[in-house]
Amino acid sequence: MRVSVLGAGSWGTTVAALVCKRHETLVWSRDPGVAEEINLRHRNQVYLPGFALPPALTATDDLVVAAATAQVLIMGVPSHAFRGVLERACDHVPPWIPVVSLAKGLEDETALRMTQIVEQVLPGHPAAALTGPNLAKEILAGKAAATVIATGDETVATLLQEILQRGLLRVYTNGDVIGCELGGALKNVVAIAAGMAEGLGVGDNTRAAVITRGLAELAQLGQAMGGQAATFAGLTGLGDLVATCLSPYSRNRHVGEQLGRGRKLDDVLAEMITTAEGVRTTPVAVRLGDRHGLELPICRTIHRVLTGEITARDAYAGLRHSPAGTESGPW
Amino acid sequence: MRVSVLGAGSWGTTVAALVCKRHETLVWSRDPGVAEEINLRHRNQVYLPGFALPPALTATDDLVVAAATAQVLIMGVPSHAFRGVLERACDHVPPWIPVVSLAKGLEDETALRMTQIVEQVLPGHPAAALTGPNLAKEILAGKAAATVIATGDETVATLLQEILQRGLLRVYTNGDVIGCELGGALKNVVAIAAGMAEGLGVGDNTRAAVITRGLAELAQLGQAMGGQAATFAGLTGLGDLVATCLSPYSRNRHVGEQLGRGRKLDDVLAEMITTAEGVRTTPVAVRLGDRHGLELPICRTIHRVLTGEITARDAYAGLRHSPAGTESGPW
Repeated sequence: MRVSVLGAGSWGTTVAALVCKRHETLVWSRDPGVAEEINLRHRNQVYLPGFALPPALTATDDLVVAAATAQVLIMGVPSHAFRGVLERACDHVPPWIPVVSLAKGLEDETALRMTQIVEQVLPGHPAAALTGPNLAKEILAGKAAATVIATGDETVATLLQEILQRGLLRVYTNGDVIGCELGGALKNVVAIAAGMAEGLGVGDNTRAAVITRGLAELAQLGQAMGGQAATFAGLTGLGDLVATCLSPYSRNRHVGEQLGRGRKLDDVLAEMITTAEGVRTTPVAVRLGDRHGLELPICRTIHRVLTGEITARDAYAGLRHSPAGTESGPW
Repeated sequence: MRVSVLGAGSWGTTVAALVCKRHETLVWSRDPGVAEEINLRHRNQVYLPGFALPPALTATDDLVVAAATAQVLIMGVPSHAFRGVLERACDHVPPWIPVVSLAKGLEDETALRMTQIVEQVLPGHPAAALTGPNLAKEILAGKAAATVIATGDETVATLLQEILQRGLLRVYTNGDVIGCELGGALKNVVAIAAGMAEGLGVGDNTRAAVITRGLAELAQLGQAMGGQAATFAGLTGLGDLVATCLSPYSRNRHVGEQLGRGRKLDDVLAEMITTAEGVRTTPVAVRLGDRHGLELPICRTIHRVLTGEITARDAYAGLRHSPAGTESGPW
């Protein structure tokens, strides 16, 4: 099977490095320098400094070549660039082949999930999402992990499971595409909130409460949008959220932590070369909450911090002052 | 309101220190030295080294005095001593007063929850459990936290909420006593598993997967025993589990971590002055799994490590080698 991965960021490159051990794999980078570095030096120093990539992995900066030779297309670009890259590629993509999204975000203006964009740009192609608690650098370092391939078609799911599964990466299938994609996207908002708690030094009791109430909030929104409750308690919801909150590597947790320390969002983002999807997902989550008539106190509070309306410290004081009733009530 | 707390360990003393700010509070210690230290020096150096206690908090080593003067009785003794202390106190407890359990465990031989023991030893007394993500030292240090009072009677719940709620401790009520108590007890087994992952250095992806699949396992057992699914995703299940796994203070996480580093259980326990409830809860969870015909792969694997049958490293290898199917299947 020939697999093309569009996007040579840390996660796209990592997935390509796993797949290339059993399948002919080509990764596309918009940057000719990155493609050359992967081909000649088997490295990607900007996104995965210090990691050696398999020599079998080849790269190109020619999107048409990458699209035209694919039997499976994997989309490793962030949500804000997802549609643009797919539209440039779509005329060259062979018919019927499955398209797998690696992005954990929602489209800014439309609030669409990535597989919905696939269905718009490449109708007739099975769309899937690979999502779960997957810190790229750990996987590349050979540590074990579990992940989920979410797609509506069981045959496609089993095929993709076979392509992606490696000794130490366990790939589960899940038919609840809506729940899996929303969990992966919305958990980044909660990760910012938990990171903020860490930056403020409010303690592990509070971080745990924020994670718990935050997960309840994203499950509430996700169910209103058609996801299943059990999915949000699984690897793509809770699992991904916990990995993000435990890990020193998480970008969204990092943004929250820096805001908690009193820094300004623009300054924090200016230092980062990778995308913190949660910063873009937060306003989308708030708009979706409005559409479904949901309170979402944590999402809305994080939004006010990101826009600069209140500080992280104000945010925590505010969340504490709402009355505690029964546990099913709002925090 | 006069409140008596039986047991002057770290959590019993902490709860007593919170309650005494608005209610006359007496804490009982079996150790006359601890009682004297609380009364004269306002400290409890063995269990809460370095923390100053409120001068209003008084202590006694006379169980009869503590029991007889109570208008609310709070049980701050570990699960293995719970029935014994309650039986010694029961003839002196005034009629009708509510009894609140702070213990997060199950009785060894009977597999009973603590409020079930209250109902056996003190029939006619409303029984409640205080449980949730509550690291004693953080609360005593004045950090914010959320917790849950679980009891079947809404009037009692509201009264206890009023007694326990402080500025920074938010107390929610929850009528699902079974789910709240089981979450608090069973989460300690998963905390040992997550600690073991940490000790083995298997990475945050795997720790997140263990926490997620472990929570699914305890929710499965808890629902078979009559708890509600939503409770296990709340503060007393997920919240407590996450706090335990984040915190350097957790005893159960500590036991798991040391086992992960290759140490022997007896050596680890010999160094600890406080109880790691999960070590006793694990065999009870396995027996309950047998009774309800459940697979519980994580609980059973941890049990085999605790009995010395396999090492922590074997345990992780074994959990990885079962096939990954759909996400709802066993890990």
